[in-house]
Amino acid sequence: MYTLYYSPGACSLAPHIALLENKLPFELKKVDLKTHMTADGVEFSTVNPKNYVPVLVLENNEILTEAAAILFYIAEHGPDANKIASPDEIKRYRLLESLVFVSSEMHKVIGTFFNKQLPEESKVILRDKIKNRFNYLDAKLKSSEYLTGPEFSVADAYCFTVLRWFGILDTGLMLSDWPNISTYFEKLRTRPAIVVAYEEEGLTR
Amino acid sequence: MYTLYYSPGACSLAPHIALLENKLPFELKKVDLKTHMTADGVEFSTVNPKNYVPVLVLENNEILTEAAAILFYIAEHGPDANKIASPDEIKRYRLLESLVFVSSEMHKVIGTFFNKQLPEESKVILRDKIKNRFNYLDAKLKSSEYLTGPEFSVADAYCFTVLRWFGILDTGLMLSDWPNISTYFEKLRTRPAIVVAYEEEGLTR
Repeated sequence: MYTLYYSPGACSLAPHIALLENKLPFELKKVDLKTHMTADGVEFSTVNPKNYVPVLVLENNEILTEAAAILFYIAEHGPDANKIASPDEIKRYRLLESLVFVSSEMHKVIGTFFNKQLPEESKVILRDKIKNRFNYLDAKLKSSEYLTGPEFSVADAYCFTVLRWFGILDTGLMLSDWPNISTYFEKLRTRPAIVVAYEEEGLTR
Repeated sequence: MYTLYYSPGACSLAPHIALLENKLPFELKKVDLKTHMTADGVEFSTVNPKNYVPVLVLENNEILTEAAAILFYIAEHGPDANKIASPDEIKRYRLLESLVFVSSEMHKVIGTFFNKQLPEESKVILRDKIKNRFNYLDAKLKSSEYLTGPEFSVADAYCFTVLRWFGILDTGLMLSDWPNISTYFEKLRTRPAIVVAYEEEGLTR
């Protein structure tokens, strides 16, 4: 049994979806990111000194942090782990490459708009970056159903999570300007694991 | 034989160091990130549509992008690959966790200061974030010689590369305020692979 520390709609949504997709047994522990307390009254910094979600407690009680690392762990422990198991298999590194792309080029750029104090000049710089990365992603999704090919992977769980933020935040850009990303997002939104994750985190959109 | 596309001192310095540390055979191809042309006259976007370094061309001619993914690949193909080979081995995920931490929490934050148009309000936000992450890192390096334990790993090559930027950029912060990080950086600076990488990229500091 795994334990996932999460905050509703935060990037912990990605491992939440990935655990469901991979049918791994887990329990959820909610963290209030303002007070840094867990719902069961524990100071979160005692769990993760970095004080951010997600945290995955492994079956041997080791604590694993960083969304992209947790997602790769889940992929390597799910029912399709053998498909990415060998260092001679390029699929393995395509998954890692996509995870790092979402983490460093999308999560960190789009997530910055959560900061209400973000100055307008910074928004201009970030918008250019988002356009650039979305142009690349849209072209990729034109010829590939999912990020790493014809099958859903944990990288899509992560990409979906960040695109969800994009839909909520006021970035000054519209997802509909990238039709392949829009179609991809809408298709993912109806996946059973994503519907369940929304319910379990109490998300409405 | 691998090929590494790099730009002097960019985050491609990390896989450059890692290739040397792991004694893997490689050649370097220099990219001008202003003109987006390689030194041998190729438009870089035809190599990597994302138009950024590093790119590692594998021995089977597959193109791998994203620094953290390339570094994990190198670790999995170096002489110590067996130490991180099993999904039952937590060391494997500690390495990945450190790579993702450097990528998303250090590279992306410190690297933003390369932008000369960065407004002062943004610098204030970023400085707070750097302090926060450096406090965590300094505490970690107090009890651990390297990022993932007593041995140097590819995550240290990445962390060194980003700390080098910190020393060059005007962030308004001083590395000497974090003594364990300073000691770690100075120690890494004299590693033979890092000295060679500096020479090969024409770096002086």
